[in-house]
Amino acid sequence: MPPVAPRTGDAIFANIERVNAELFTLTYGAIVRQLLTDLEEVEEVNKQLDQMGYNIGIRLIDEFLAKSNVSRCNDFRETTDVIAKVGFKMFLGVTASVTNWDADGTCCSIVLEDNPLVDFVELPDNCQGLYYCNILSGVIRGALDMVSMKTEVTWLRDVLRGDDVFELQVKLVKHVPEEYPYKDDE
Amino acid sequence: MPPVAPRTGDAIFANIERVNAELFTLTYGAIVRQLLTDLEEVEEVNKQLDQMGYNIGIRLIDEFLAKSNVSRCNDFRETTDVIAKVGFKMFLGVTASVTNWDADGTCCSIVLEDNPLVDFVELPDNCQGLYYCNILSGVIRGALDMVSMKTEVTWLRDVLRGDDVFELQVKLVKHVPEEYPYKDDE
Repeated sequence: MPPVAPRTGDAIFANIERVNAELFTLTYGAIVRQLLTDLEEVEEVNKQLDQMGYNIGIRLIDEFLAKSNVSRCNDFRETTDVIAKVGFKMFLGVTASVTNWDADGTCCSIVLEDNPLVDFVELPDNCQGLYYCNILSGVIRGALDMVSMKTEVTWLRDVLRGDDVFELQVKLVKHVPEEYPYKDDE
Repeated sequence: MPPVAPRTGDAIFANIERVNAELFTLTYGAIVRQLLTDLEEVEEVNKQLDQMGYNIGIRLIDEFLAKSNVSRCNDFRETTDVIAKVGFKMFLGVTASVTNWDADGTCCSIVLEDNPLVDFVELPDNCQGLYYCNILSGVIRGALDMVSMKTEVTWLRDVLRGDDVFELQVKLVKHVPEEYPYKDDE
């Protein structure tokens, strides 16, 4: 049996089309600023960023499966490991780690020390409730949804809120195994 | 005298932090969609994209000057050449060409055959007036503003509107030479 995935996303990241990280960072900052202006309520901005991320995630999973050479993951544990080690590298150029597993293997944390989204960012006082990187939680939720894993993704730690790292809790709510409602010859 | 700039941005692009182009493309698409929902009028979306680009451009110029090793450009012609050959490569990973100069060297076109912003994009019928990539014109205008060149940047051709390439007309309106209002010993 081939290994489930490359150990890291380095080689894949080196071979895909990329753009300048600072351009991405500033463009993302422009989105957040725009949403803050248009929606006013920080809580609404969090929701909208998550929804935008979700819409991106359900498309990005195709690129991921096409370019990553990841074969089917056997369980949620393997899946989160691939997201952290291959996914983050492949898309953001950084590596994350997986930790804090619960006993039954349905909840863990993805920890991110480096995050290009927040370069040069400081939250003003009136934005303290903002989850600035909420697009990321949406992307993960959207991508996992497309491989039949319903999840809840929540920020536990956030450097912009004074923590030392970013920590995203990923909780598997429901795993819907793929079903083929019709046989091939029907 | 050292050459004004590296001939291309290839070496610089290879050595800066980058993110996945598809992530950038989808994120930019999410902005445009958000603006279309919030602002409704296509003309307003064009303006807002241009303004967002301007705000990005006035910051991106710092990264450009810091990392590109470009020394002072002697005139507008040299400047646009650097934007097309080094700037586009450094930030978007593509190369542009400069053409259609007017007689007095104050107006030209930057032509772009490849543009990662528009991968997978098709404009629906109700968005035919949209300049989808208007953020780019804003970035150029903002960046040039910071080096004392007031410009007007206008789309002449757009692949999303059925043209074969993207063509941005850059017109120098005013060149404000840097002035030092105080002498050093004042």
